[in-house]
Amino acid sequence: MSDAFESYLNENRERFLDELKTLLSRPSIAAQGIGLTETAEIVRTRLERLGADVRLLPVEGAPPIVYAELGHRGPLLMIYNHYDVQPPEPLELWESRPFEPSFRNGRVYARGVADNKGNLLGRIQAVETWMATRGELPIRLRWVIEGEEETSSAHLECFVDENEELIRGADGCLWESGYRDKAGRPVLTMGLKGIAYFELTARGAKSDLHSAYAPIIPNPAWRLVWALATLKNEHDEIMIDGYLEHVVQPPAEAVEAADAVPFEEARFKADSGIDRFVAGVTGKEAVRRYLFAPTCTICGIESGYTGAGAKTVLPSVARAKVDLRLVPDLTPELAAELLRKHLDRHGYGDIRIELLGGEPPARSSIKSKVARAARAAAESVYGKDPVVYPNMAGSGPMYHLCDRFGIPAVGSGCGDSDSNVHAPNESISVEDYFTHVRFMGELIETFKE
Amino acid sequence: MSDAFESYLNENRERFLDELKTLLSRPSIAAQGIGLTETAEIVRTRLERLGADVRLLPVEGAPPIVYAELGHRGPLLMIYNHYDVQPPEPLELWESRPFEPSFRNGRVYARGVADNKGNLLGRIQAVETWMATRGELPIRLRWVIEGEEETSSAHLECFVDENEELIRGADGCLWESGYRDKAGRPVLTMGLKGIAYFELTARGAKSDLHSAYAPIIPNPAWRLVWALATLKNEHDEIMIDGYLEHVVQPPAEAVEAADAVPFEEARFKADSGIDRFVAGVTGKEAVRRYLFAPTCTICGIESGYTGAGAKTVLPSVARAKVDLRLVPDLTPELAAELLRKHLDRHGYGDIRIELLGGEPPARSSIKSKVARAARAAAESVYGKDPVVYPNMAGSGPMYHLCDRFGIPAVGSGCGDSDSNVHAPNESISVEDYFTHVRFMGELIETFKE
Repeated sequence: MSDAFESYLNENRERFLDELKTLLSRPSIAAQGIGLTETAEIVRTRLERLGADVRLLPVEGAPPIVYAELGHRGPLLMIYNHYDVQPPEPLELWESRPFEPSFRNGRVYARGVADNKGNLLGRIQAVETWMATRGELPIRLRWVIEGEEETSSAHLECFVDENEELIRGADGCLWESGYRDKAGRPVLTMGLKGIAYFELTARGAKSDLHSAYAPIIPNPAWRLVWALATLKNEHDEIMIDGYLEHVVQPPAEAVEAADAVPFEEARFKADSGIDRFVAGVTGKEAVRRYLFAPTCTICGIESGYTGAGAKTVLPSVARAKVDLRLVPDLTPELAAELLRKHLDRHGYGDIRIELLGGEPPARSSIKSKVARAARAAAESVYGKDPVVYPNMAGSGPMYHLCDRFGIPAVGSGCGDSDSNVHAPNESISVEDYFTHVRFMGELIETFKE
Repeated sequence: MSDAFESYLNENRERFLDELKTLLSRPSIAAQGIGLTETAEIVRTRLERLGADVRLLPVEGAPPIVYAELGHRGPLLMIYNHYDVQPPEPLELWESRPFEPSFRNGRVYARGVADNKGNLLGRIQAVETWMATRGELPIRLRWVIEGEEETSSAHLECFVDENEELIRGADGCLWESGYRDKAGRPVLTMGLKGIAYFELTARGAKSDLHSAYAPIIPNPAWRLVWALATLKNEHDEIMIDGYLEHVVQPPAEAVEAADAVPFEEARFKADSGIDRFVAGVTGKEAVRRYLFAPTCTICGIESGYTGAGAKTVLPSVARAKVDLRLVPDLTPELAAELLRKHLDRHGYGDIRIELLGGEPPARSSIKSKVARAARAAAESVYGKDPVVYPNMAGSGPMYHLCDRFGIPAVGSGCGDSDSNVHAPNESISVEDYFTHVRFMGELIETFKE
């Protein structure tokens, strides 16, 4: 970065950290409906101080979207962030309070600091710094900052449907997330898997009965187990009829990127406490499977008596939570349709399916303008070659904001491998925070070309 | 009954009900370790007032057994009861407090009144009445009254091992339970199924992970589902290797008795809220299946996230409670061995099995002396032909007290089809209570021959 940028950053370091503390001190928990509009107002005010044209756009059934525009020339960069955070529970595992930011050992601890209030605010401060030291922006910026990412962005698609003109036309999108790996390399992400999250319910008698009735009264726990066992076999192969026909091979550049991802297999296995990956995959094959394979996962299952000891009960209901991580060309709607048809065809028409949430997969080319700009900025700021993930194994609303309009995206952020995202003691390194500010400043340069 | 018996009963009606209230007012919850020794003392005192030779016999790890002997001549009848009751929860569903007996609509409401403090006390009062009106007993009586029947009589087998001389030699046993059916017929029971209750546990990573890791990290919920699906197929056929080879055909007299059991199929289905029995059985075939089929029942299953909405978690552990109801010649030990071998052979050696409790099946001939005496007494007292179940579909410790020593057993009791055994608002009809007293008085006559 320029000396002027560094000097300004240095002079305003304490204020920038104070602003971060203010944002982190405000609980904004989408799952619990806590503090969302208040936090949106903080973000709106901060963007207004930058000189942006800001609007709080109402979303039916959801917290408002903070939408902002800044700049009058050059290519148009959309910035996607979210101001909501995961619930802080379990509270007893936090070493400091989740909404009272604690600075220790060169890190900031607070719920949402890595995911993703740090990214959200650092990018704004980067634009301030750029303008304060260089003047008029050489690119146009457009912020879309939502408040229910942590609850699957359930209403974002509707919002986009009704506000296409606010999204369409961006030349690239800087996505919310990214981190620095254990070796200090910046990680850029080019996409996400989709997801379809289902609840399956089987019902039997109208109330739980004594298990002595098992010879004649149907048991919904068995129905559910048998139905589930038709979805994926004991070799971990997804057996949903017609499902795999919709899985297309990832493009060569994505496979190449996956093969270049550093993977410390032994350490990963030790950290997870397992000695063998699913289907016995290993090395590059494990990385490819991790990034490109669709999944069918029992996230939860419950029926009958689950307390201590023995209770001889014949359950009246059994439920499972099943998530399908989707890869191109699968979509939540297609997954729901195939799952229903599959269960019907296998004799499980009685099992109710509810689609609790879904997002299509998304992936941008690593050759896009915004990807090339992000790589150049990351190389310059971190001094290391970035690791480029062709997509993450997780999910998010990227499709609705980007792929749907042909807008390429790339993710980068200030977390690291110790950030405990979604877990107690979420944190980032203070230096990584400012490095992300520098990255955003540099991206204004590399993206303007 | 004799006029004298009836007169005594009438004169002492209020005192007998007061004694019942006293016994019911004392919580004695085996599962929660509440009030057991105190209740044993009440029973001991009542038996001593009868003139019996009573001992409170300690049982390692369990509440004491009340053991009593009375009478010096004639055949020896063992009476099995238990002074413990099921937990009263859920309390909010009780219309009166479970341990404050409430008399309304000709019924007594209280936890344990049907199962089985009513039977326990009514039998003692019958003996008092007989002796007060007739003099010396023409039979010998031996009471074995335990305090952990509701938690599977876990220590009764050990007690019997160490006290064989207290059990051996009885000419028959009056078992704890029985009831009056909807048509007013007394129900006598000749046996029980056995049971083996297992907890199965599958483990994966050392903690729950983000479900994005599903392509490579093994999921114990799937392991458990696949393993369970090998135990019973979708046609409800038990597939545990070698298991069904140990099932012997019930004797002709048992089948005949089963076929004579009145079965109001439509009402039963409507009450349960189902429209079809397992395997499509109906009529007599349903009764035979209910009484004679071994079972493999998922009583409970739990893994991962089971709350409201969606949480994308890859579980680290999955557990199932599975009960196997055993018919001759299956035993808990054999069931445990076959289950372990089956899971190992099918590739599920990683799934841990814990046997939480077990009892062998038990069944007596309907031609035994005690069965014939009970039928004659029931006919005389109820004025209707009894319904004789060759065995119940439930389980109990009958084998250890009876079959093991060649002692035939028969069950009879004061409950009815509205007694809500093990459920809120447990109750019996007051008149049924006194009818059971009469039944016991008559049994002294019919058994003495």
